[in-house]
Amino acid sequence: MRFFNDRRFFLFLVTAGVYLLYSVAFASAGADGESGGGSGHGGPVLQVLLELIVILLAAKLGGDLFERVKAPAVLGELVIGMIIGNLHLIGVDFFLVFKTDITLEILAEIGVIILLFEVGLESTVKEMMKVGLTSLIVATLGVIVPFFLGWGASVIFLPEESIYVHLFIGATLTATSVGITARVLKDIGKINTRESKIILGAAVIDDIMGLIILAVVTGIISAASAETGEGVSSAAVLLIIVKAVGFIIGAIVIGYWVLPHYFKFGFRLKGKGVMLSFSLLVCFLLAYIAGEVGLAPIVGAFAAGLILEEVHFKHFRDRGEYGIEELIAPIATFLVPIFFVRMGMLVDLTTFANVEILGFAGTLTIAAILGKQVCALGVFDKTINRIAIGLGMIPRGEVGLIFAGIGAKLMYDGHPVISTGTYSAVVIMVIITTLVTPPALIASLSRGDKKKKSK
Amino acid sequence: MRFFNDRRFFLFLVTAGVYLLYSVAFASAGADGESGGGSGHGGPVLQVLLELIVILLAAKLGGDLFERVKAPAVLGELVIGMIIGNLHLIGVDFFLVFKTDITLEILAEIGVIILLFEVGLESTVKEMMKVGLTSLIVATLGVIVPFFLGWGASVIFLPEESIYVHLFIGATLTATSVGITARVLKDIGKINTRESKIILGAAVIDDIMGLIILAVVTGIISAASAETGEGVSSAAVLLIIVKAVGFIIGAIVIGYWVLPHYFKFGFRLKGKGVMLSFSLLVCFLLAYIAGEVGLAPIVGAFAAGLILEEVHFKHFRDRGEYGIEELIAPIATFLVPIFFVRMGMLVDLTTFANVEILGFAGTLTIAAILGKQVCALGVFDKTINRIAIGLGMIPRGEVGLIFAGIGAKLMYDGHPVISTGTYSAVVIMVIITTLVTPPALIASLSRGDKKKKSK
Repeated sequence: MRFFNDRRFFLFLVTAGVYLLYSVAFASAGADGESGGGSGHGGPVLQVLLELIVILLAAKLGGDLFERVKAPAVLGELVIGMIIGNLHLIGVDFFLVFKTDITLEILAEIGVIILLFEVGLESTVKEMMKVGLTSLIVATLGVIVPFFLGWGASVIFLPEESIYVHLFIGATLTATSVGITARVLKDIGKINTRESKIILGAAVIDDIMGLIILAVVTGIISAASAETGEGVSSAAVLLIIVKAVGFIIGAIVIGYWVLPHYFKFGFRLKGKGVMLSFSLLVCFLLAYIAGEVGLAPIVGAFAAGLILEEVHFKHFRDRGEYGIEELIAPIATFLVPIFFVRMGMLVDLTTFANVEILGFAGTLTIAAILGKQVCALGVFDKTINRIAIGLGMIPRGEVGLIFAGIGAKLMYDGHPVISTGTYSAVVIMVIITTLVTPPALIASLSRGDKKKKSK
Repeated sequence: MRFFNDRRFFLFLVTAGVYLLYSVAFASAGADGESGGGSGHGGPVLQVLLELIVILLAAKLGGDLFERVKAPAVLGELVIGMIIGNLHLIGVDFFLVFKTDITLEILAEIGVIILLFEVGLESTVKEMMKVGLTSLIVATLGVIVPFFLGWGASVIFLPEESIYVHLFIGATLTATSVGITARVLKDIGKINTRESKIILGAAVIDDIMGLIILAVVTGIISAASAETGEGVSSAAVLLIIVKAVGFIIGAIVIGYWVLPHYFKFGFRLKGKGVMLSFSLLVCFLLAYIAGEVGLAPIVGAFAAGLILEEVHFKHFRDRGEYGIEELIAPIATFLVPIFFVRMGMLVDLTTFANVEILGFAGTLTIAAILGKQVCALGVFDKTINRIAIGLGMIPRGEVGLIFAGIGAKLMYDGHPVISTGTYSAVVIMVIITTLVTPPALIASLSRGDKKKKSK
């Protein structure tokens, strides 16, 4: 509140407002008037500039408010996004176009790709290997249990539906969406802990598992459905497994073999910014290939961050260039908030108004949250904060939504496998798991810190 | 050539190729096959990632080749863009979609906005004021002379056309597109010279003048045309002048008054990256308002850079944050090459094949180039490299194309003021003025350096 006691800040707000009004008023005068010069410049970039202005400002203000109450900035970005994205409910339609702007969507996607790349940079392949077995167990438990809990929820709430619907709903609960957890761990400076590495590794693995489950379930339903008649062959499933696992192993092996030569080549290039451009190239290339083989692009970006190591940049650093983390950070500052504010904007508050759907959504959410808590059982090392692992695995995101989207298009017995109501329930599940994770994770990790200190 | 003597680099190329093929092959197998899982992720972001990969790599390779022969990197980016953008002529259609991707267009626009912001940061309003009068004279000469030369070229080549067509063609030659000059001056480390400041100032001013001329010419043609019957009122022209000049003065005055409080407010915000985000906000806001009042968004971005000064960041710097130039540089490294490679890609080499158009285009180009050389006469200070000023003002860009585009839609006497052939001629003029500037400017500036040394 003390901002508003500052008379000069008040002046600033007034001036900024007048200035904006001036531009808008004159712009519309130009459009309506007979000048004909109003269309001299501009075009689609102006709309995106406006969106960036709103989002960057909202992100910083929202982040500030939440950090003041010791909540992570990312939660502030989500919440302020939710507010902006639902202002049309009280008649402010100005921000509606933000949700459907494809360029903003892609900027947001590049933002989360940069975030996971940044997170990957803070770990090495070796460190990930060390927690590899634990991550595998955590991922496996965290896929199996939510799958069956989701199935159960579906049986209770949709008793008249076939087993295929239950199968599909179970599948939507499997894959962790690690973006938000990574951001929280980064915000509170815990990204280098072993807990973080286990969660990140498990998220990569369960993305692969989710992909396989989706293929199998979709195949079974297609086979069972009289309309398409196509079945799932074990060869097709095998192909998916080979693609996904092959991508991860290939990235690591080829990365180790090729990257030194790649950066040696880059070092010989004249011109500025080669080190950053060549690093971004690795990030975008692996994100692209991951997307092409059916994985989430962020899995590729994370892998790219993992395989890039300090030694690759030695020559560049020796001639006085900045470190890769320092070069990526400003790009992340620019692009990452776009992802989270936009994610908040996509939350449709009216979905919470339907009581019937809300019951199913609540059960599904509980299944999603509890299902991942068994992940804690997969960690045998008792010095690790096992509760935090389970909590970090809670968020479901675009993977669940993509699954639900595919289900909505998949027909069985004359109607879509995922009905509109079920889709809304999945959306609510995604929202709640996303909103619930940051505070829970922080509470658990700070309690862990206190325990350690008291010992 | 010595890269290819390196056996290991060869291995790298082969491996990278195999890896890409692997992804493409598997991706299409997924799409054709019966797996159904191929669409698990991805979407529009994958296409953009692919475009970014191609452009970033091409930019660095092109930049390297040209820097080796002492040419500026930006010329390499343009030329390699031209090659990629015309590969469809020899049957490679893969890159055709790059030209029409709206997201890539917007990323490129944000890139050039960031570039002009960066350039603006290197100057202060005071420094610009010092060269203000010179810039004004340079701009005025550089608008009047090309206007009449273009008119003359039109009279010679299109004798059967009305005076309105000649007027319009003259107008397309007026405004300098300062992006390429700024980039060249930056590439060769001359952005802080007085020559640079005069050119940049004049470019801002002639953008305003171009806007006014466009409004007047469009108004006159509309008034003369029986079809629309609308005229240009002096009130409308006055409005345009007030808007454009008001924007520039407003940005400077309000900037000085508001920015200290704005950054003081920002400094109190918790969270990371506030300094960069708040600077980007100023940049995007002024670019947006410039676009809304009809100026080029880059004029706004440049103004934003001008009014941001070291003193605003003092508190941030005192607590150990990076300088604004260091924070903007990585974003520029990422986004700026997109603009120049894409600009090269938009060059359609087939337009050079039409001899009839080529004659007109050549004359127009000569008018455009010679017309700006009188700018040298506007500089009375003989210690300044006056030739360089004239050369730096040569490039025409999006402003000329926008004028031509408006002319193509404006009807007079039953046909468009700017015919398809004339439009192509304008495009060729834009291409040649863009390509010719970097080497000419560099030659002049390095000759100037030698003179100074020999004295």
